[in-house]
Amino acid sequence: MKLFSEAINGIKPLYKDAMQEAQKRVDFLAKPPGSLGKLESIAVQLSGITGNIINKVDKKCTIVMCSDNGIFEEGVSSCPQVITVAQTINFIKGITGVGFLSKHAGADLKVVDIGINDDIEYPGLINKKIRKSTWNISKGPAMTRAEAFKAIEIGIEMVGIAKEEGYSLLGTGEMGICNTSTSSAVLISLTSCSIETAVGRGAGLTDKGFENKKAAISRALEINNPDNNDVIDVLSKVGGFDIAGMAGCFIGAAYYRIPILIDGFISAAAALVACKINPLVKDYLIPSHNSAEPGFALLMNELGMSPLLDLNMRLGEGSGCPLAFHIISASCEMMSNMATFAEAEINDDYLEELRKK
Amino acid sequence: MKLFSEAINGIKPLYKDAMQEAQKRVDFLAKPPGSLGKLESIAVQLSGITGNIINKVDKKCTIVMCSDNGIFEEGVSSCPQVITVAQTINFIKGITGVGFLSKHAGADLKVVDIGINDDIEYPGLINKKIRKSTWNISKGPAMTRAEAFKAIEIGIEMVGIAKEEGYSLLGTGEMGICNTSTSSAVLISLTSCSIETAVGRGAGLTDKGFENKKAAISRALEINNPDNNDVIDVLSKVGGFDIAGMAGCFIGAAYYRIPILIDGFISAAAALVACKINPLVKDYLIPSHNSAEPGFALLMNELGMSPLLDLNMRLGEGSGCPLAFHIISASCEMMSNMATFAEAEINDDYLEELRKK
Repeated sequence: MKLFSEAINGIKPLYKDAMQEAQKRVDFLAKPPGSLGKLESIAVQLSGITGNIINKVDKKCTIVMCSDNGIFEEGVSSCPQVITVAQTINFIKGITGVGFLSKHAGADLKVVDIGINDDIEYPGLINKKIRKSTWNISKGPAMTRAEAFKAIEIGIEMVGIAKEEGYSLLGTGEMGICNTSTSSAVLISLTSCSIETAVGRGAGLTDKGFENKKAAISRALEINNPDNNDVIDVLSKVGGFDIAGMAGCFIGAAYYRIPILIDGFISAAAALVACKINPLVKDYLIPSHNSAEPGFALLMNELGMSPLLDLNMRLGEGSGCPLAFHIISASCEMMSNMATFAEAEINDDYLEELRKK
Repeated sequence: MKLFSEAINGIKPLYKDAMQEAQKRVDFLAKPPGSLGKLESIAVQLSGITGNIINKVDKKCTIVMCSDNGIFEEGVSSCPQVITVAQTINFIKGITGVGFLSKHAGADLKVVDIGINDDIEYPGLINKKIRKSTWNISKGPAMTRAEAFKAIEIGIEMVGIAKEEGYSLLGTGEMGICNTSTSSAVLISLTSCSIETAVGRGAGLTDKGFENKKAAISRALEINNPDNNDVIDVLSKVGGFDIAGMAGCFIGAAYYRIPILIDGFISAAAALVACKINPLVKDYLIPSHNSAEPGFALLMNELGMSPLLDLNMRLGEGSGCPLAFHIISASCEMMSNMATFAEAEINDDYLEELRKK
């Protein structure tokens, strides 16, 4: 609880002065005001986070939280549970979705075992296992309250290490069969939206499987009856270690003042958890892509955000983050390499000179 | 007219066999089917364009058509006309929006003077000037029919040269004060949509300027009465050299079989012109970003497309293209570097081996 309290109480608002200075520079750039849209707002946000007008995001990394979910035994996924561990190793090999995309973006991955249901060791895999899988939320709580805090602290710790290692931009990802079920349960608990709007087919359920998934989530909400005024109660009762770990990453990013990207549905559910714990966290987050999971739009709406990319993706893993790193980097380039109106020399002398050539 | 006829009659459909092979590979990749969304569909489209299952887009370029519009004298823009020529030179210097974004993407620019209202020469500027500015569409046609064909052929020629130079991915951009007015006029003529839905504030008009712009476009449509069954009639009467040149780029891309990106509102209007001339062109186009100009959504709807990026940008210049190059490149990486299910080894032997470590 020490790191959790330290982080939660240590989060400060964005640097307003730096944001004003950054906005001034944005307005001096040779373009109609506001015409570079989110490239402009991201540049100002980055200044608020770091305190610098010109920022660089050369060293980038996606933190991937891998864990299993006890609700697997309800048959809510179209995939076998071994995919969690197999893909975790494939992340390190760089051959999964987020793996090849990270290589393509010149970015790194930190792969964390926060609760995989297997005794696994692999060079490069960060072992932070709380326990082998959460319990089945259709029958009781996913984890203890202490475990929820521990999982959040693991996320905070990972960001602290990344910051020390010189990373200037982070992404969040996950692997965990059944984690669309836990994310839906968290979403419903925190927003009181309907099961119909919050639950999707995950990796590709049949009609029958989809009905079963909704029924299992419904039982989880009924049996646990989480208190939506107590976000740790929600997280520990119907969440997962991966969601809690990612929520910790978002809190850590706000605490250590480093911009962090939201990936898809599960990551966005974790972002909502983090923002409910401390609303200041929101200012440090950037949504990456529009997930095709139906609950994602509800989460964006709740967070008051709209994503940068619309690629109809629904892979998870953090796959939207390396794609969006390029946009954040472009926003930084704008601040350092785009001409100001003065530099663009849109004036008569300049034009007269051009004519003489 | 020779190159125009040659290109229009020489456009062939996508290679269906290559697309089927590409789709097979996409389906063998270690992910839930369809979960990488547009990265998957773009990979299949690229195969249809080139005939290769694995594609590379290492050499990329945005072709920027620069020209002036006679409707400037109606006061429909918040900018002075000299910005066209000043920014054209700044493109070559790499300091405008599309300039710094191209550098950031490792991409090139081809800057074409297709009708700037000034006697201008500059090292690197491609002189294809048809005439200094179109005529004022509020008083008569923008150009002759012959000039419209000539402008289209310039676009086709530019793509042919780019193909010869080894470019494997193209973007389209423009510079021309008042070209949101001409684009709106083209959009209204081709789709019969209302002025209210098709006209925006461009670079930032006041309320009064906005009303004036709508009135000027309304007069242009009334006085020219373009025949919406004859797209060259529409283009020559209420279009511009830049729109015609970009339409030529799209036609050229389909003829020379090279993928090409649509940028914002003006580029999308040109894309609609090209697709009305030959509907096969559409299969060679990829929309880049969602422009904040109101008519853009109508054009995407008409083209049956949805853009990759949603950055609330409305700069034009081709600025969305270099940002989207990264996505197209990621799609190519998926085909060459993401594991297939066989390579991902999601099987018991593999897991047993992992446990022994």
